[in-house]
Amino acid sequence: MSDDLPTADDVLAAAARIAGHASLTPVLRSRTLDALAGCELHFKGEHLQRGGAFKFRGACNAVWSLPEAEAGRGVVTHSSGNHGAALALAARSRGIPCHVVVPDGAVAAKLANIQRHGATLWRCEATQAAREATCAQVQASTGAHLVHPYADARVIAGQGTAALELVAQAGIPDIVVVPVGGGGLAAGTALALASAAPGCRLVLAEPAGAADTARSLTAGERRIDFVPDTVCDGLRGALGAPNFALLQASGAEAIVVDDAATLAAMQLAWQVLKQVIEPSSAIALAAVLAEPARFAGRRVGVVLSGGNVDLGALPWRG
Amino acid sequence: MSDDLPTADDVLAAAARIAGHASLTPVLRSRTLDALAGCELHFKGEHLQRGGAFKFRGACNAVWSLPEAEAGRGVVTHSSGNHGAALALAARSRGIPCHVVVPDGAVAAKLANIQRHGATLWRCEATQAAREATCAQVQASTGAHLVHPYADARVIAGQGTAALELVAQAGIPDIVVVPVGGGGLAAGTALALASAAPGCRLVLAEPAGAADTARSLTAGERRIDFVPDTVCDGLRGALGAPNFALLQASGAEAIVVDDAATLAAMQLAWQVLKQVIEPSSAIALAAVLAEPARFAGRRVGVVLSGGNVDLGALPWRG
Repeated sequence: MSDDLPTADDVLAAAARIAGHASLTPVLRSRTLDALAGCELHFKGEHLQRGGAFKFRGACNAVWSLPEAEAGRGVVTHSSGNHGAALALAARSRGIPCHVVVPDGAVAAKLANIQRHGATLWRCEATQAAREATCAQVQASTGAHLVHPYADARVIAGQGTAALELVAQAGIPDIVVVPVGGGGLAAGTALALASAAPGCRLVLAEPAGAADTARSLTAGERRIDFVPDTVCDGLRGALGAPNFALLQASGAEAIVVDDAATLAAMQLAWQVLKQVIEPSSAIALAAVLAEPARFAGRRVGVVLSGGNVDLGALPWRG
Repeated sequence: MSDDLPTADDVLAAAARIAGHASLTPVLRSRTLDALAGCELHFKGEHLQRGGAFKFRGACNAVWSLPEAEAGRGVVTHSSGNHGAALALAARSRGIPCHVVVPDGAVAAKLANIQRHGATLWRCEATQAAREATCAQVQASTGAHLVHPYADARVIAGQGTAALELVAQAGIPDIVVVPVGGGGLAAGTALALASAAPGCRLVLAEPAGAADTARSLTAGERRIDFVPDTVCDGLRGALGAPNFALLQASGAEAIVVDDAATLAAMQLAWQVLKQVIEPSSAIALAAVLAEPARFAGRRVGVVLSGGNVDLGALPWRG
């Protein structure tokens, strides 16, 4: 794991590095949602990214940053889903092996993606300790290089490229809202905005059942002792150390959202935007709708981070 | 009801008439679906049209074709859903009243759209006779002008503008596939292709439980005596007379698809394209997947006609 803090220049370098591989995802608008939210919403459609989530950006930047000799031994990670699929896809784009350690209870659609993209799957118990131990075993036996899902400078820099694109496509927003779990997207977005859109505020949408980032920012130090309890399966990870450092420096603010509001926003996005987004994405729209005064009349960028959902097990009565 | 046959020029005129009101919908691509289908698929995203379906094009063309004096008395139609919502929206764009006769059993999401767009709702039994009788009553009492959902030259011409745009956006396809119910979109597409993409074949995707168009084209005369039985709620109407005439002249061919294949294609589109499309749209993708030899290696335009679905009552185990 690399704990060095990435810089805004690293985000620019990442954008150049992944340009041939990642999709330039569209920015979506909706008159209906603008009217409902009382602001101008620009949705960056990362659910339309390769692998169905922004995660491909960071994974691709990490894979293509590796020196040739090291790359040949492959990459390994632990992931409940989107990062694993993204790393598998990124590894395949370079023709190197990929190993993914998957905790029990992961979303079936995400597991299927990981395997479809050619990675080797390693199952383990759903604890942080089991994930790290299994990962270390795979590293030892294969020599594969660890690409942590979020506490990694190359991954953070790669995730920041989504916000760079958003600013280029839609102009400088007043506020950008992203979901926060481990903080890869959040920290990368903070870096990107600091250089491409100074003055733009960063708001983090975080589930009430995994609100370690909100607590950490309030406390002024990382507070990650919690048992996640949220429908947002992509946001259950604990805030990373470099991620916290970057978010604290950026002045980002968190909005804590309960799962009921997230699911309501998810249905709204499906109905009105006609986009299949996962709960971990919908939380960003839920945050905007939860605190209308904060966004009234502003130009708001919202990163729709992913769209990998089990259609056979939707989180509402189907 | 206007039975005059529209021409390719009427489609061009419609495009100019609705330009300020209708959305230019995007054309979507997918590496995964191209690989699966063995051809190059260009999806015209009419589920992203205003009102959530291509129907706004025809309704808008009809509403804005009315002479000023007649327009003031408003418009009326009978519709199980998308045309009703589209006419309501079109009427509102001109500031005139709209009445919609809705048969029992219509999809709740579509009824909600009709009311949200400001139309007056009139319920009736789910028979063709009841629909037409109620419609005539409303006409008599309000003086409103009837805009038939599909057997209307202005509506057909309006629906054809989607294919015009597809050709302009994606280049001339070898084949275009559209769903067929009453035949408004199908007939309009035939007109548009005849002038904008001569040589391009038109394929109609039709549910096995409402295959009157396939039967009519085979018989060489309209065969519309059937009781619809299909999950494609937008395709239950009987092929219109002008629609049949235009389709027969165009040499269009039908592919008949059973509901199971349509639902599988719908789930595939949700999972891979991340787009919420309704069964009546998914049938076009299902038709391509059902007869791969017919499409192998070709450039295929597929009109995703609408995305209005009851999320609380999905046609699979949620």
